[in-house]
Amino acid sequence: MSGPDTSFRAQAIAKIQTMQEAITRSLEQVEGAEFRRDQWTREDGKGHGQSNIIQRGNVFEKGGVNFTTLELPLNRGIAEAMSVRGKAIDMQELGQYSIFAAGVSLVIHPFNPHVPTVHGNYRFMEVMKGQEVVDWWFAGGSDLTPYYLYEEDCVLFHTQLKSACDSLGADVYPKYKKWCDEYFFIKHRGISRGIGGIFFDDVNTYERPQLLAFIGNCAQAFVDSYPAIVSRRKDIVSTEAERYWQEIRHGHYVEFNMVYDRGTKFGLQTPDANIEAVLMPMPTTARWEYKHQVEPGSREAALVAVLTHPREWTN
Amino acid sequence: MSGPDTSFRAQAIAKIQTMQEAITRSLEQVEGAEFRRDQWTREDGKGHGQSNIIQRGNVFEKGGVNFTTLELPLNRGIAEAMSVRGKAIDMQELGQYSIFAAGVSLVIHPFNPHVPTVHGNYRFMEVMKGQEVVDWWFAGGSDLTPYYLYEEDCVLFHTQLKSACDSLGADVYPKYKKWCDEYFFIKHRGISRGIGGIFFDDVNTYERPQLLAFIGNCAQAFVDSYPAIVSRRKDIVSTEAERYWQEIRHGHYVEFNMVYDRGTKFGLQTPDANIEAVLMPMPTTARWEYKHQVEPGSREAALVAVLTHPREWTN
Repeated sequence: MSGPDTSFRAQAIAKIQTMQEAITRSLEQVEGAEFRRDQWTREDGKGHGQSNIIQRGNVFEKGGVNFTTLELPLNRGIAEAMSVRGKAIDMQELGQYSIFAAGVSLVIHPFNPHVPTVHGNYRFMEVMKGQEVVDWWFAGGSDLTPYYLYEEDCVLFHTQLKSACDSLGADVYPKYKKWCDEYFFIKHRGISRGIGGIFFDDVNTYERPQLLAFIGNCAQAFVDSYPAIVSRRKDIVSTEAERYWQEIRHGHYVEFNMVYDRGTKFGLQTPDANIEAVLMPMPTTARWEYKHQVEPGSREAALVAVLTHPREWTN
Repeated sequence: MSGPDTSFRAQAIAKIQTMQEAITRSLEQVEGAEFRRDQWTREDGKGHGQSNIIQRGNVFEKGGVNFTTLELPLNRGIAEAMSVRGKAIDMQELGQYSIFAAGVSLVIHPFNPHVPTVHGNYRFMEVMKGQEVVDWWFAGGSDLTPYYLYEEDCVLFHTQLKSACDSLGADVYPKYKKWCDEYFFIKHRGISRGIGGIFFDDVNTYERPQLLAFIGNCAQAFVDSYPAIVSRRKDIVSTEAERYWQEIRHGHYVEFNMVYDRGTKFGLQTPDANIEAVLMPMPTTARWEYKHQVEPGSREAALVAVLTHPREWTN
């Protein structure tokens, strides 16, 4: 391959910033307030970003929609994680490699346990050896983590994502939906993080502009589903017991992110990373109770049934 | 090396169980109530243990003193972690390896933020290839995680551990104290988990009975320090703001355990592990606030100063 196509990089960055803004505005509308915009630049000049943050809002307890772009030397931890995924990195010549990333990532934790937590993340990556691009790919996905099951919410969320995937091909949604179910699985607990969505990584079998349009459609799918779900559920009166269950599930969320999530791992292994952005996905509070069990027949048990046996949510 | 010395294994198991009981009783005394004893056996018969548990006690919010013994086939995840530490595992013949472990591990999270959290963990390990012991070692340590700094508590904790180390040699405490400061460091935050203690891994340069006696002395050091610290602090009246800070620090504790702790990683990678025992170290509640900062000149800032610059606590 040849040197970096800086015009595509610029296009990708512009598109991703547009996605960030559209997502943030759709959230501000249901929140009824503006998110705070935090711009940041790495001290070494090798990256910058903008975090659009809400904390203790009206509807959202904590959340962020973050744009990041970086170009950094590849370090051993990240290179090893890439090798495991089949990328050909010559570890003897590690010093010659660098990685470019531009992406948007969001996690929203609402106060009300009847409103689901949501995550989304779309990024364009290039691996350079010296001045040459030796690899590139798109990656991302979006998944929903309800505390109580409202089937029509799951259907809306998945239907919108399916329609974004269909723009790329009819085989895309089934593949990325399954990938999501596999990826967001908390192995040590034998349950999923939530009711899924889509997930994809290392995708470079389409043209780059086509993939850029695809992630734009995914952002639109978010705008067309999550705020509507929030509106439906945000005024349901919740109990202490429901909030307790939400905190237990927050604990599972923390476990997934710390132990399995590639984005979080990448962030924690990046020297001088913006740790506030990396840990933005953490819920405000989480709870671990020894031998916590859900009551058979309860609404909590109904959710757990779906977490252990992922369902199809579209036709 | 030759086959496993089953008489030493039996001795080690008996000693470790005695340590578990002594530690538990010393904690029950300050708690003013008995811990619950949960015995468990792996379904495949390859391990068993006993968890001595307290949850929502008088003084302790959550804690456990767990005894575990296992003999399991070595899996890829654990073998790779061992290779990184310089153990010669022939990955081509991974199927022939098994690992024997017997250990006690404890974590105690008190309600009162003026009482520190404490961790301790001592274990004997053997690696078998077929019927032959190809490697063995002792590992462990103990560290203190205060929320507010009481220097005399840090001094007592370290002085007792130093005296246990001195039984092995005068060079042991300085070495294991430094190792602890390095190990319990939360790299992505640039702060330590707490004020340290001792840590050691892969130790086999002493005779096995000598090391077994040493870990017994370490258990005694715990009995002679932590309960006294609890007694000193448990009746201090604490504020909401202090409890909030405790939850922030609980978040750091969770991060350390999920991202760096070898014991937790080992547990999460062990198929069909007793996940309740593996996750016992988690605090009941933890908190993540976006861009949380301690106030300059505050007692929280005084603690952070020690977390960023480990001190010497003994002469």
